Amino acid sequence: MTSYTHQTAPTQFVEANGTRFAYRRFGNPQGVPIVLNQHFRGTLDYWDPAVTDGLAKTREVILFDNAGIASSSGEVPPSIPQMGANAIAFIRALGLSKVDVLGFSIGGMVAQEIALQAPDLVRKLTEIFAGSYDPPEHLWLAVHFSPSAASRAAGLAFLERKHRRTDRDSEVSEDAAARQREAIGAYIAGGESVQGHLKDLRLPTLIVQGSNDVIIPTMNSYVLQQKLPNAQLIVYPDANHGSFYQYPDLFVKHATLFLDV
Amino acid sequence: MTSYTHQTAPTQFVEANGTRFAYRRFGNPQGVPIVLNQHFRGTLDYWDPAVTDGLAKTREVILFDNAGIASSSGEVPPSIPQMGANAIAFIRALGLSKVDVLGFSIGGMVAQEIALQAPDLVRKLTEIFAGSYDPPEHLWLAVHFSPSAASRAAGLAFLERKHRRTDRDSEVSEDAAARQREAIGAYIAGGESVQGHLKDLRLPTLIVQGSNDVIIPTMNSYVLQQKLPNAQLIVYPDANHGSFYQYPDLFVKHATLFLDV
Repeated sequence: MTSYTHQTAPTQFVEANGTRFAYRRFGNPQGVPIVLNQHFRGTLDYWDPAVTDGLAKTREVILFDNAGIASSSGEVPPSIPQMGANAIAFIRALGLSKVDVLGFSIGGMVAQEIALQAPDLVRKLTEIFAGSYDPPEHLWLAVHFSPSAASRAAGLAFLERKHRRTDRDSEVSEDAAARQREAIGAYIAGGESVQGHLKDLRLPTLIVQGSNDVIIPTMNSYVLQQKLPNAQLIVYPDANHGSFYQYPDLFVKHATLFLDV
Repeated sequence: MTSYTHQTAPTQFVEANGTRFAYRRFGNPQGVPIVLNQHFRGTLDYWDPAVTDGLAKTREVILFDNAGIASSSGEVPPSIPQMGANAIAFIRALGLSKVDVLGFSIGGMVAQEIALQAPDLVRKLTEIFAGSYDPPEHLWLAVHFSPSAASRAAGLAFLERKHRRTDRDSEVSEDAAARQREAIGAYIAGGESVQGHLKDLRLPTLIVQGSNDVIIPTMNSYVLQQKLPNAQLIVYPDANHGSFYQYPDLFVKHATLFLDV
């Protein structure tokens, strides 16, 4: 369909549920497309091009701003399940009936909701436990990478890749960020949480985390693997919240294996 | 060097430290060979041909009976460190100065010892937590696989692959098995254990385990990953002690990625 890449894919828009969703779509138009759900305060431009272009070699990659985020209209809803419902509306508005879903940190919570609310829509789930933090960029480095020289060098390379694109998405507004925080708080407080329904998520799931995550304890991924009926867990060494940005080539190979087998 | 496979590789012998070691060597004679360390009561014929032939596509695979096991002469020593020393003597007797080492269950403990005692000899370490149990075969099924239909079918397929070779190794004697038990007991009791030295094992390590291991708790692999400075952990879903026999193709791809990157 396209020969677009992370750098060249134009920002497009689609209407659903009263929201005008901003998205970019690129890659090999074969098989099942993969929809990426971004972390707290992240936008279309916060993904690692080494990861998105790597995945795009073997499938279509769809990045989007959920409702109220950056270039999308609407408001950030106060709960993760509503974020999941918005994501489902977006995916269906593209005319897709079967997708793979990847979620990064808060995006992983949203990804679980998508699979739970629309089980027929989702083939395989990939969850990456890595959160995010407020800028400035040195804080991203501290959160996504470990203090070792190797991890820090990988972090600087990620920042260089991330900033290469000039036609950039807008940032997340303070109001939207506050609403994201509220939704995360409600999620952690329980009640509406997906935690009680993990055993119902029978689809193949890949969980990826760094060995020493300062935002979400690495143990969280272990417990999640134990609770999900069909989950594979990969923990990368010497890695923090941004493990898949630290090992983008290896992650792409692991994810491609998971998606293809 | 050869076009031998798991099924056709002849059993060869080499002398070292007064022991006549039985081994088989086959595969692509490029790069660094990988030496496989077997589990409690296992012999040359207990490996899964889907795994060994899979690894052999991209490197040489060396299977051996450690001292006192099956077709090798000598006595099983009463400790894991001595088993490691015997394995090192065997590897050096083949004229090799750099190998990758894979260990399965008790073989994983031996593999750690090899890396600890001969750090220059070992490039990368792969540990699979899966133990073993006494025959009959249905017990292997119960231990290596989970009760699900998919896991049981994979278990039956493994048994069929394992029994295909007709020119078979002898079994482990009752005396040797008793000595293996003694070494495992000493290892668990501590004292000589490698546990205190895990932080010194700085080589790249891959740990693989099933999600629900009845012999060695799956949590063990998580703790090991956290203690080793440079370890990647992969946990397979719906799997027991024989996770890499349940997903042999996926394991071969994961192990090959780990060994090649």
